[in-house]
Amino acid sequence: MDVLKTNKRKIINDPVFGFINLPSEIIFDLIEHPYFQRLRRIKQLGLSHLVFPGANHTRFEHAIGALHLMILAIDVLRQKGIDISDEEAEAVSVAILLHDIGHGPFSHTLESTLVSGISHEDLSILLMEELNREFGGKLELAICIFKNRYHKKFLHQLVSSQLDMDRLDYLRRDSFFSGVVEGSTGSDRIIKMLNVVDDQLVVEKKGIYSIEQFLIARRLMYWQVYLHKTVLSADFLLVNVLKRAKELAMRGIELYGPPQLQWLLTHTVLPDDLKDCGQKSILIQNFVLLDDSDIISSIKVWCSHSEPVLSYLSNSVINRKLYKIKVLEEPVSTKKFRQYKAMASATYSVNEEDVNYYVFQGVIENSAYVTESENILILSNSGKIADIKDASDVDLKALSKTVKKYYLCYPKDLDTK
Amino acid sequence: MDVLKTNKRKIINDPVFGFINLPSEIIFDLIEHPYFQRLRRIKQLGLSHLVFPGANHTRFEHAIGALHLMILAIDVLRQKGIDISDEEAEAVSVAILLHDIGHGPFSHTLESTLVSGISHEDLSILLMEELNREFGGKLELAICIFKNRYHKKFLHQLVSSQLDMDRLDYLRRDSFFSGVVEGSTGSDRIIKMLNVVDDQLVVEKKGIYSIEQFLIARRLMYWQVYLHKTVLSADFLLVNVLKRAKELAMRGIELYGPPQLQWLLTHTVLPDDLKDCGQKSILIQNFVLLDDSDIISSIKVWCSHSEPVLSYLSNSVINRKLYKIKVLEEPVSTKKFRQYKAMASATYSVNEEDVNYYVFQGVIENSAYVTESENILILSNSGKIADIKDASDVDLKALSKTVKKYYLCYPKDLDTK
Amino acid sequence: MDVLKTNKRKIINDPVFGFINLPSEIIFDLIEHPYFQRLRRIKQLGLSHLVFPGANHTRFEHAIGALHLMILAIDVLRQKGIDISDEEAEAVSVAILLHDIGHGPFSHTLESTLVSGISHEDLSILLMEELNREFGGKLELAICIFKNRYHKKFLHQLVSSQLDMDRLDYLRRDSFFSGVVEGSTGSDRIIKMLNVVDDQLVVEKKGIYSIEQFLIARRLMYWQVYLHKTVLSADFLLVNVLKRAKELAMRGIELYGPPQLQWLLTHTVLPDDLKDCGQKSILIQNFVLLDDSDIISSIKVWCSHSEPVLSYLSNSVINRKLYKIKVLEEPVSTKKFRQYKAMASATYSVNEEDVNYYVFQGVIENSAYVTESENILILSNSGKIADIKDASDVDLKALSKTVKKYYLCYPKDLDTK
Amino acid sequence: MDVLKTNKRKIINDPVFGFINLPSEIIFDLIEHPYFQRLRRIKQLGLSHLVFPGANHTRFEHAIGALHLMILAIDVLRQKGIDISDEEAEAVSVAILLHDIGHGPFSHTLESTLVSGISHEDLSILLMEELNREFGGKLELAICIFKNRYHKKFLHQLVSSQLDMDRLDYLRRDSFFSGVVEGSTGSDRIIKMLNVVDDQLVVEKKGIYSIEQFLIARRLMYWQVYLHKTVLSADFLLVNVLKRAKELAMRGIELYGPPQLQWLLTHTVLPDDLKDCGQKSILIQNFVLLDDSDIISSIKVWCSHSEPVLSYLSNSVINRKLYKIKVLEEPVSTKKFRQYKAMASATYSVNEEDVNYYVFQGVIENSAYVTESENILILSNSGKIADIKDASDVDLKALSKTVKKYYLCYPKDLDTK
Repeated sequence: MDVLKTNKRKIINDPVFGFINLPSEIIFDLIEHPYFQRLRRIKQLGLSHLVFPGANHTRFEHAIGALHLMILAIDVLRQKGIDISDEEAEAVSVAILLHDIGHGPFSHTLESTLVSGISHEDLSILLMEELNREFGGKLELAICIFKNRYHKKFLHQLVSSQLDMDRLDYLRRDSFFSGVVEGSTGSDRIIKMLNVVDDQLVVEKKGIYSIEQFLIARRLMYWQVYLHKTVLSADFLLVNVLKRAKELAMRGIELYGPPQLQWLLTHTVLPDDLKDCGQKSILIQNFVLLDDSDIISSIKVWCSHSEPVLSYLSNSVINRKLYKIKVLEEPVSTKKFRQYKAMASATYSVNEEDVNYYVFQGVIENSAYVTESENILILSNSGKIADIKDASDVDLKALSKTVKKYYLCYPKDLDTK
Repeated sequence: MDVLKTNKRKIINDPVFGFINLPSEIIFDLIEHPYFQRLRRIKQLGLSHLVFPGANHTRFEHAIGALHLMILAIDVLRQKGIDISDEEAEAVSVAILLHDIGHGPFSHTLESTLVSGISHEDLSILLMEELNREFGGKLELAICIFKNRYHKKFLHQLVSSQLDMDRLDYLRRDSFFSGVVEGSTGSDRIIKMLNVVDDQLVVEKKGIYSIEQFLIARRLMYWQVYLHKTVLSADFLLVNVLKRAKELAMRGIELYGPPQLQWLLTHTVLPDDLKDCGQKSILIQNFVLLDDSDIISSIKVWCSHSEPVLSYLSNSVINRKLYKIKVLEEPVSTKKFRQYKAMASATYSVNEEDVNYYVFQGVIENSAYVTESENILILSNSGKIADIKDASDVDLKALSKTVKKYYLCYPKDLDTK
Repeated sequence: MDVLKTNKRKIINDPVFGFINLPSEIIFDLIEHPYFQRLRRIKQLGLSHLVFPGANHTRFEHAIGALHLMILAIDVLRQKGIDISDEEAEAVSVAILLHDIGHGPFSHTLESTLVSGISHEDLSILLMEELNREFGGKLELAICIFKNRYHKKFLHQLVSSQLDMDRLDYLRRDSFFSGVVEGSTGSDRIIKMLNVVDDQLVVEKKGIYSIEQFLIARRLMYWQVYLHKTVLSADFLLVNVLKRAKELAMRGIELYGPPQLQWLLTHTVLPDDLKDCGQKSILIQNFVLLDDSDIISSIKVWCSHSEPVLSYLSNSVINRKLYKIKVLEEPVSTKKFRQYKAMASATYSVNEEDVNYYVFQGVIENSAYVTESENILILSNSGKIADIKDASDVDLKALSKTVKKYYLCYPKDLDTK
Repeated sequence: MDVLKTNKRKIINDPVFGFINLPSEIIFDLIEHPYFQRLRRIKQLGLSHLVFPGANHTRFEHAIGALHLMILAIDVLRQKGIDISDEEAEAVSVAILLHDIGHGPFSHTLESTLVSGISHEDLSILLMEELNREFGGKLELAICIFKNRYHKKFLHQLVSSQLDMDRLDYLRRDSFFSGVVEGSTGSDRIIKMLNVVDDQLVVEKKGIYSIEQFLIARRLMYWQVYLHKTVLSADFLLVNVLKRAKELAMRGIELYGPPQLQWLLTHTVLPDDLKDCGQKSILIQNFVLLDDSDIISSIKVWCSHSEPVLSYLSNSVINRKLYKIKVLEEPVSTKKFRQYKAMASATYSVNEEDVNYYVFQGVIENSAYVTESENILILSNSGKIADIKDASDVDLKALSKTVKKYYLCYPKDLDTK
């Protein structure tokens, strides 16, 4: 395994957390599995490196970082007298290690094109179940916790909630590699402040300021990095490349690409297909072979495809000739939108339908990061539990409000016309 | 000067910002002056190192760090076309360098005892004027900016406002040395986003999330570090030591201590005295000789003074036998307060008056950090200026609300009675 | 361009150095060029991320980091009175920016297979000349400096020598991303200590300890990271994959892969071909389209190729079933070597020739990093210049000695036979 | 105790290592003891902060950092099967925690003046024995290990040897606070590589490059920080201040200062006195009350003492009017030395004897850091043990050679005569 092996104890060198010890044999074996190794070839932040050149870190590193924080959290909770058996500790560790196993390359892009309608969580579960078969049922409890069907609910919350180890790792890691230092959070302090009351993960009162800071830092990371205008523009272009490719492939036009990508371009997978065992296994077979390199390598070849829309879009992504994106508080006026489409139509000699690949609009919504249903709970000194929104002096209501912005995208040279 | 001298260019090695270049001869000469060298012997955070052992950094380092940020800010603003002459650049650099020159040891403690009623800002001005005389009037413009009498108001705002270089340095520095990493802020990004419109310092729109993060990080630092319970308990004890010492000294009881401390213990300086030249110069003469070492060295000797209250208090501070402090949302009940006083009276054999050194209560108010009068302004893309409170989606009103808490302090062993 | 644009000043967010300002229009335009954008898709350390999971940084980031250090160095030298014109400053900046433009994916691997016999330096020059044509001759001086034909030799030394900005960046960057913190060096201090005497780059005396530390840290990085056993094993496997692929392709067997890779697999490029203009342009045309993604994506498809040797090797690389590597002080004994080959022959049913893809031996030589011809010079206070090896109290001769080690590589399961 | 208290587990916030957990009750109680609290008031690097303004860290932080590394080392060794009982683990932790308890303010200065001839190690033992009495004999084993009288020698080596936890902490800590980043070492990696063979602490082979880096980084820290010219000049001046003060005090001239300093100035303590119980207890009584603040506060008062030599020297230290120091490869010529003395005699109107406080010379020897007797041992893969000097390719012999340099010190203004 990675780096030092001291008497069978595996240690990984992580630039964010230093040395990380792998706690058990099964964790080691899962990391060695091709499904997990694939995560080495999937960037954590997709095309964000086009704006933040250091952001080349992968889902592999993130999963191991989240595992590390889980081990710390288990240790803290046990010291506070929370009962976590060795079996549960291993299961919750496996669950966090595999939580992103179903991520495809440029995940959200893929979700809206290649495997439209199937979430990466669904795929994660499919792959975990596959692994469970291979590992002779040893992942049963981990899957149970992941699906939130285990009676100790706080274990699921460590894997997936407003304060899960996933978020604590990715915020610190994305901040580290993007160079947006002020997006960092005190994961150590937050973990020290965790506790469990009535089977719910809570944060002790004196951690309240760290939680506020965590929420605001997350907000900063969303707008500064994840939803950065140029990153969005690149993402939209990539969606368009793959949409166009799928459209052409469905029409029978030949496209360069590895078999697994070919399969996904020429098949429409519906959520219901996942239930059908035969179909599922073909989907999975192809899916686990796909990573960032296939998308990038193929798009590079498409740059010189004879179909002009595909080659135009492909070139724009690969050589970073990104579209202009205007982010607005109000929807784009129909008139303006039509003007730009007309210009594009003329400039690129495309018909009314294809012009939508050149000029398009939409909505950016960011409500994902504080949901109404499940909130961060603060434990007061007197033992009472309150929602962070009520416990904090700062009015954090806005953080759970859906922020809605509108965008208009089009090739930069249209502005100079 | 410090560290490397390369062909007369002075460079200082700063653990927070790396190498810092001193920009001019007068800055160098001011740093060499005994008034400024004194800042090496005054801790930035007083007794906070009793809780955060790394927090031994001094006002000397902070002043130089703030100077460094000022030089960056001037550079950014000039690149945006803001007119700042060389003379103004030097003056505003001098002003930030000297902004804390009037801080005494354990500043706020001193302000409420030894030089009660005289703020460190007043003393800073007095010392700057003194230095101005020594430097043949070369600090005229710096003082003018410091006092906010210069016509370009934004220069004063760089020195003293919600977003001055003072705060940008101290938040990062205090976070660095205390080890409370999540209190750090992106001073680099904020400075890059500064601009001046209508002679007012503003932050460009895309810096809004960094400003939110800055405000929340500051809040965190206040409650986590500056107003940490144990830090407050230590501060209150120190106030009591010095109050008792002054009381005894005024009664003619002899106390160990250097002449400058003796003078301050036996004289009552009133704000009006500052106007009287003779008196002022004696105050200044003594003040500039005083630093942390005098207070600590003297209190250690007082530990074995025959007067029991003074020696009890002194021992508590020096050997970290700090009082218990209860921080409450409501004022302490009169009954409880009397109970503790009665216990203390009996335990320490002290009379009704002196018992107030053992058991005391009060109010912690934290409104200083967002004032109503002067706010952070955000410059929208369209050129409009808005208060951050209106520009931000998060309701930051709470940050300008005075938070009021109550405390009760008493020796720990009273609880075991 | 990347990140913030403030009034046309381009700023890049770098996790290692913070904000980096791009100094001029041509630098910006070169970075935007597809040749340079390609570097985003070439990892700086090839397969090292298989051991150091954070080491996913690219030649793009490295080139910009080296540019940043160059700007600092120019500033320091000018302040010491060294004459560097604006034109020279720009040219030396362009030269460092483009110094790695000729790197292919998994560079050294490629050099020994796909473009055997052609160094990346040669390719860098070819590409620079190509760019020079496109930019109307504006890169003339940069190329001149790069080739060391400019009369001011120290400018070339800043680009390529024992102490060039290339090394100063890559050591810090590789240390940062690999997590091997003790490999870091004080690039800031070393740059502050640079000077030029008799047209030679020298380091001032007081920098001598930083230089020693730099040499030892480099040595550490070589053995700990660059020549890490597992990294070498992965590299050798990759060489074998590409060798086998080329062998098969030359034999006319069809292999999946993008056209540019196909071309390189089916053509033998000789150094002399570079002089032939027609040939050159085909080589370059293909070369600039190739990056890491093509190699990885293709090898994944080869995993299920019907040719057993290719598919075995491909699987080993992709799923991290790396060969065992034994690093030895002495050459492997012929007997032992034959034994392993016999075992492999039997186990994998391969003939005498193909068994060399399974069991192989060789020499690791590390002398590259301190050459005899060009050394680091130390400037004493009295103005005399001495080689670091003579100026240092520590005997550093060993650092210029070629360290020679022998290795034997074979599939792990042979050991359990 | 410091910072967070979570269910009686004490945690300290350290800027270098993050959260540090205190392992046991006795460790906590020892830290609370006035002898240990005193270390908060003793800077780790004496007057180095005059050159490196961030270097205000104290022996308190260092001792706790070394404790932290000890806990890590014990954990690593136990995982490798080395037998360390709980009792031994606690004892060796106590030993490292208290290893510097006998340090006085400006330790080496004090050793050569106030308590001449008595090393801080002797004082550490005295204080540990004192604490042992107070703690009812619970420190017996710790003292035994500290004195190297315990049969498991490797435990002593963890406390005091070429690779003890003391050095691993101070190099990283001093590097961190001084801002000399390249002096940092990979304490984590070195600790992971520790092992015990034949009751000797050894480093596993693959740690050899980290050890080389550690030795060279230490060398760098010595010459760059600990023996920095300006730091030495300040130290020498401080020695002279205290020598002069002692001389005057012995003559019966009254000097300001706290009783413990007065006692040390007026008594000559000889090593043999330590054996005399009565004398010893007076020495200890005074010694444990002395810290940096007493020296600084007193010297400030001496600045206006009527005795001109004392006041001149005191002013030089306090207001950073440091002497010029010339560091030379050869001894100063008698002629030159006399010239400077004559000039000083005339300039400061001092007699032939007192002029030695103004102009003085001496030798700097740095051999302390690699002794002949006890070396770092490398464990090869085959189980053989070799000295690092033989195991390393680099000739490190120079590191154990005593480097001898000569210096001449005198007031700066003599040069302008």
